[in-house]
Amino acid sequence: MFEHPDNDPVLVLDEDQCWSLLKGTQHGRLVTVVGGRADIFPVNCAVQQNSIVLRTAPGSKLAEMAVNESVVFEADGILADQAWSVVLRGTAARLETSAEREQAEELGLKPWVPTLKDFFVRISPGELSGRHFIFGPHPERELGEGSEVG
Amino acid sequence: MFEHPDNDPVLVLDEDQCWSLLKGTQHGRLVTVVGGRADIFPVNCAVQQNSIVLRTAPGSKLAEMAVNESVVFEADGILADQAWSVVLRGTAARLETSAEREQAEELGLKPWVPTLKDFFVRISPGELSGRHFIFGPHPERELGEGSEVG
Repeated sequence: MFEHPDNDPVLVLDEDQCWSLLKGTQHGRLVTVVGGRADIFPVNCAVQQNSIVLRTAPGSKLAEMAVNESVVFEADGILADQAWSVVLRGTAARLETSAEREQAEELGLKPWVPTLKDFFVRISPGELSGRHFIFGPHPERELGEGSEVG
Repeated sequence: MFEHPDNDPVLVLDEDQCWSLLKGTQHGRLVTVVGGRADIFPVNCAVQQNSIVLRTAPGSKLAEMAVNESVVFEADGILADQAWSVVLRGTAARLETSAEREQAEELGLKPWVPTLKDFFVRISPGELSGRHFIFGPHPERELGEGSEVG
């Protein structure tokens, strides 16, 4: 799925590749910024119609999203020899209507903190970016003293 | 290691527990904020003397840390029935002296993008917090219609 031209260790992913990776993951991290101060929260997530849906208990992340709806979501996967990371920059909004909530219920999401009073939040994408990395030897380790790289 | 009193699904971790989890992990995410806009980068990491050390190639995260040294680092671990997340809010500084770099070399860190010109960065802690979660059934699912919780 991830062919790296010219053995470049970094592959910039296109949007389809990013969504495909996001669909295959069930958790990520939500970054909020209020007053120039960032917070980060681990969240369960699911993809619905090219957006990310989270389910969360009341608390600081919900409060911070209400103050600043511009959020960043990140998911990654890290193996011994390769890794990927996808970052979605977007706008967070609570799902308010019962139709929206019913659709979101079908995603099977749970908040990390179970509670009777919880909320679905949709992050609508502004900017989507992703990278796939192939880990290799560090260049310093391949070079003898005095070697140069072109 | 993580005993949850009263079956509370969330356990607030103390600093020793946070450091112990950080020592056991090799990757996390670095959050930078410049001009009110957050960025998030996956990074390899190691603990050294109650600080986090990263190794990174030149690029946007290094530039953003130079503009705003206040950063947030997050690591987490997610299993089927439990999860943890540790957040370190601190100050990022490049390791400049050869003594510092030599000590950091021993950590065996690699940047995600291998390059001849890379940098070690230390995040000195300001604020450390962590949570351990036990996943359980969602309360709604345990209740029949018309049930109430006290």
